Amino acid sequence: MNPDIKKERENATFDVEKLTNVLDGSPQKTKRRREIESLVLNDPDFKEEDPNFLSRSERYDQAVRKSAQMILKLREYGIADPDEIYCYKNCVHPDRPEPLDLHLGMFLPTLLNQATPEQMDKFFMPAWNLEIIGTYAQTEMGHGTHLRGLETTATYDPSTQEFVLNCPTISSIKWWPGGLGKTSNHAIVLAQLYTQGNCHGLHAFIVPIRDMNTHKPLPGIVVGDIGPKFGFNEVDNGFLKLENVRIPRENMLMKYAKVEPDGTYVKPPSSKLTYGTMVFIRSMIVGESARALAKSCTIAIRYSAVRHQSEMRPGEPEPQILDYQTQQYKLFPLLAMSYAFAFVGQYMKQTYHRITGDINQGDFSELPELHALSAGLKAFTTWATNSAIEVCRMSCGGHGYSRSSALPDLYVEFTPTCTYEGENTVMMLQTARYLVKSYRQVKNGQQLSGIVSYLNEAQHQRVQPQPVASRPTVVDINDLSSLVEVYKLRAAILVELAAKSIQQELQRRKSEEDAWNNSAIDLVRASDAHCHYVVVKLFTDKLGEIGDTAVHSVLSALALLYALQGITQNSGDFLQAGLLSVPQVLQISVRIKELLSQLRPNAVALVDAFDFHDKKLNSVLGRYDGNVYEHMFEWARRSPLNSTEVHESFHKYLKPLRSKL
Amino acid sequence: MNPDIKKERENATFDVEKLTNVLDGSPQKTKRRREIESLVLNDPDFKEEDPNFLSRSERYDQAVRKSAQMILKLREYGIADPDEIYCYKNCVHPDRPEPLDLHLGMFLPTLLNQATPEQMDKFFMPAWNLEIIGTYAQTEMGHGTHLRGLETTATYDPSTQEFVLNCPTISSIKWWPGGLGKTSNHAIVLAQLYTQGNCHGLHAFIVPIRDMNTHKPLPGIVVGDIGPKFGFNEVDNGFLKLENVRIPRENMLMKYAKVEPDGTYVKPPSSKLTYGTMVFIRSMIVGESARALAKSCTIAIRYSAVRHQSEMRPGEPEPQILDYQTQQYKLFPLLAMSYAFAFVGQYMKQTYHRITGDINQGDFSELPELHALSAGLKAFTTWATNSAIEVCRMSCGGHGYSRSSALPDLYVEFTPTCTYEGENTVMMLQTARYLVKSYRQVKNGQQLSGIVSYLNEAQHQRVQPQPVASRPTVVDINDLSSLVEVYKLRAAILVELAAKSIQQELQRRKSEEDAWNNSAIDLVRASDAHCHYVVVKLFTDKLGEIGDTAVHSVLSALALLYALQGITQNSGDFLQAGLLSVPQVLQISVRIKELLSQLRPNAVALVDAFDFHDKKLNSVLGRYDGNVYEHMFEWARRSPLNSTEVHESFHKYLKPLRSKL
Repeated sequence: MNPDIKKERENATFDVEKLTNVLDGSPQKTKRRREIESLVLNDPDFKEEDPNFLSRSERYDQAVRKSAQMILKLREYGIADPDEIYCYKNCVHPDRPEPLDLHLGMFLPTLLNQATPEQMDKFFMPAWNLEIIGTYAQTEMGHGTHLRGLETTATYDPSTQEFVLNCPTISSIKWWPGGLGKTSNHAIVLAQLYTQGNCHGLHAFIVPIRDMNTHKPLPGIVVGDIGPKFGFNEVDNGFLKLENVRIPRENMLMKYAKVEPDGTYVKPPSSKLTYGTMVFIRSMIVGESARALAKSCTIAIRYSAVRHQSEMRPGEPEPQILDYQTQQYKLFPLLAMSYAFAFVGQYMKQTYHRITGDINQGDFSELPELHALSAGLKAFTTWATNSAIEVCRMSCGGHGYSRSSALPDLYVEFTPTCTYEGENTVMMLQTARYLVKSYRQVKNGQQLSGIVSYLNEAQHQRVQPQPVASRPTVVDINDLSSLVEVYKLRAAILVELAAKSIQQELQRRKSEEDAWNNSAIDLVRASDAHCHYVVVKLFTDKLGEIGDTAVHSVLSALALLYALQGITQNSGDFLQAGLLSVPQVLQISVRIKELLSQLRPNAVALVDAFDFHDKKLNSVLGRYDGNVYEHMFEWARRSPLNSTEVHESFHKYLKPLRSKL
Repeated sequence: MNPDIKKERENATFDVEKLTNVLDGSPQKTKRRREIESLVLNDPDFKEEDPNFLSRSERYDQAVRKSAQMILKLREYGIADPDEIYCYKNCVHPDRPEPLDLHLGMFLPTLLNQATPEQMDKFFMPAWNLEIIGTYAQTEMGHGTHLRGLETTATYDPSTQEFVLNCPTISSIKWWPGGLGKTSNHAIVLAQLYTQGNCHGLHAFIVPIRDMNTHKPLPGIVVGDIGPKFGFNEVDNGFLKLENVRIPRENMLMKYAKVEPDGTYVKPPSSKLTYGTMVFIRSMIVGESARALAKSCTIAIRYSAVRHQSEMRPGEPEPQILDYQTQQYKLFPLLAMSYAFAFVGQYMKQTYHRITGDINQGDFSELPELHALSAGLKAFTTWATNSAIEVCRMSCGGHGYSRSSALPDLYVEFTPTCTYEGENTVMMLQTARYLVKSYRQVKNGQQLSGIVSYLNEAQHQRVQPQPVASRPTVVDINDLSSLVEVYKLRAAILVELAAKSIQQELQRRKSEEDAWNNSAIDLVRASDAHCHYVVVKLFTDKLGEIGDTAVHSVLSALALLYALQGITQNSGDFLQAGLLSVPQVLQISVRIKELLSQLRPNAVALVDAFDFHDKKLNSVLGRYDGNVYEHMFEWARRSPLNSTEVHESFHKYLKPLRSKL
């Protein structure tokens, strides 16, 4: 063990294991998680070549091998709980997507939700046994977020009782689905349904795309990989062009909507159920943000404890870079954010499960709020994490650029969360729509409940920002509940500001749509403030659940740092609205510095508590033992460019050049 | 030509060519640049395979081939002007670093600056003719910014008149130099010089590392590639471990410092000259920021003009995404920033050349200011550009993740600028040191000149921030010179705040060093405000040089947007200091929206003016003709994973799985 990092651990003021239990949910859950992880980490079948040393084709190959092993082993061990499967998978493919993700996460669940009993008989077991390997083909080259814009058609031909599928334009080619390029032999294709001369909108069809035996593309199917991307090297995101592909009528997923043999269209009873899946995935992404951020902080903080650089005092040894105030200021607020997002992730998961219970009993009342919250928080947490990973990486100096640090891969694997499952700006605007709607309900005399109930209190004079000095100051910057209150007021004011902006546009005789678009900046800002309030509130609420004094103390410091740093970064909002005075903003800067010093001795212990196994972290800089340099040297020597002493390009180009110059 | 983008160009209000000339410096320079570019772009010898489809070894191989060609052709054409060489190189390797960069950019210039006439005779011509291929080995695995911390030693042995070089520890292994891993046969090694029992600090030594004929590593030399990185795939950044390597005394670069045959050390007369190279490189990086940002904006804005998505008004066709206010708000401030940084880059280059002239006449007086300015602006522009590239990428939705967009590569090739040639936080603190020193000079009654002269005016009561309302408001938010003034006052206030923070720490009996570290957050903030002021000022100054009314008008709108957006993002600073009132901050938000609408018709023309040839941009999304989708499809089909219809992993893993489940 590196002596620096050993000393850090000795200086911690709290019991790391207790905090790990808080993050896992209980000591039992920590134990079970470790059991599952050790199943993978000690399994020689999952040994892998470092993907950084492989070509894309080799990376894909290795991922398919491991995924196939994973399916076998999960069944062998009888692991069936979704959380445990998720844990196992994240250990097999350490936070990397894999070729069977869409088969397991979309194809099978979609069958479960939307197939008729006859379709289940025909498709589910073959898919369960991986004879059928499927993907979910929705996005097209020219169409993403806006589902009504999708162009692929499925036209019913009653003479043969078949659907004829077509991608009539280049922009209608299915594009991006994971596992589509090489892995899948079936796809659930989302297409505009035409029957009896009418379009009935988007429906789902099971389309065989490759021969079950030879795996070659079927007639009329143009399928392939969309080419290299920023990350996602293990996944064959694919394209699919359908050219007069005929499938039997029975291949339309008909649990809800139907097409009768004669072509008569039967409408679905309700559309609310599909809503739930999106909400679930977005809620999960909040947890993924927390995990990616926690990993990045673990790497950057451990490395900062063993890296020495420059001199603070002449003649003295180079200090640990974690002792520089600027380094603490980069990393500790992000560490606080990791904890904040972890607790928000826990809350979202619990809330989802609670509301799912209600829905199963026919109570949809809380779904709109959760839908709005999951959209906004997905955007809020992924954007923040996206920038934060890069701050962590750059805080490691040059070595953060080495793929051995794991930080470059962490970034490229994470950043798509800002775009997929709902582009972040669109997500923010969805939340804003809910906020403005709620605001208008209050204006119309309704009383709101739930997380937007603060809009009830909106004092209408507050929207006209006032000079700072004219407002009595009641905020205690050391009291979290007081800070929750100012975040709430800020959110209320910005929602009101956005609503008024729309109002003003309407008064200028703009259409509702133009008024909305012309206020979009304000709307995103309102959503952001709302989400920020929710995060600060949930972090504060969580502290109430922590029994252990030492853990409570260090988490309180983190929560305070998170809240105060957020105010500093948005001080204009708080000053503008008169929620804080100028001297308070200055006090906050001083208080943040104190918190950095206060957290310094616990920094390493706080990342240790995330409990990432070295093999899962897979970072030379983030090693638990802190022995960074020797392992970096060893890693470099194994890299493919060193497999020969002399690269052939010397003999091909450089040596011949001499005679020409 | 895509009709949307055609229409955009028809709607422009200014002559694109005239703006291009402003960016190049003159119509003649535009012409000459295009001539040089066409030499490369029309040359079949530079035809390349898309690097995205190659392995790292193949990418390196292709880069060496092109670099060798480049050397030949530059000599063939007689291109010798540094700017023209730079232009040619940036076309051969479109903004990608290449294996000979350090040979050309560091090894040869270091010989020129630091070699004796005898050393020139011995080393320069062989290096010029690429028999000797060299690199510059300074950074060690455990030591970067802090040069005094480097551990590699060169111990003089008078008995053989040789230096004995050693890397005594793992952390002292030379790490990162470009071209070191595979390409170079020599390295200029920076090592602590020991002679007659004393250490004389860092000196430069020419060390042969590979056999001139076989290219195999010489005895005592452990050399190789440091492994895959975030970007820089064309470059063999290397490691070098020296184990009792003996070189003749004549291999120490002795133009300034010397070691006599008997081991007597002779000090260099002055150290100021090495200073200049750093300043030059940092100044160049400002221009590189501008170019990377301009490329990113070109791609994102052209694509936003042809991409249609969602519906703004029910029943109407999907609008161009450039019509969404949120999209404009993401991109137009970055477009403004591209122009701002381009003009700052021009200024830095001119200033460098002017001051170099002074230096050659023995006048070093302006060097400290330029040194401080180049450090801060390097950090300010690279940080801003780094984030901005990612905003551009994510503004392209899913397709921004495809390597065909060029945006992922733009990011990974650019981001190292935040760390190399001076880590950004360290750079900001260097500038802060100059600012605090200047501030103290004013306090001591000196009168400052140059860009920090605003500190002369510092009214001492201003540092105590006052309630917003108590201050008379004189700022005209539509007048750039008025905005330059508030940026200047903000900088002055933040410099004073940082200086006072140090003062307070000293009063608490902290050492000067601890006081500095405990004020580092404030110091970075002061530097940032200083640089921001400089950028707004230089952009505003530049407008005075623009004769063409239409060009002047659109650039003025961009400058205003840049200045106002900067205020919005830092509104806390301006409110806190009472420089702007709350109503003004609200007016600025409204004004920004107006500017977005005003710039909308010129957006495509403004990126066209950057005049990036399609082959140089190499982005499917950023194509001049806007024909995005068909070329994306074509690109994908060429990708290596599509070279076979069925990937072997199907037969190896997936098909066998069926029988096991």
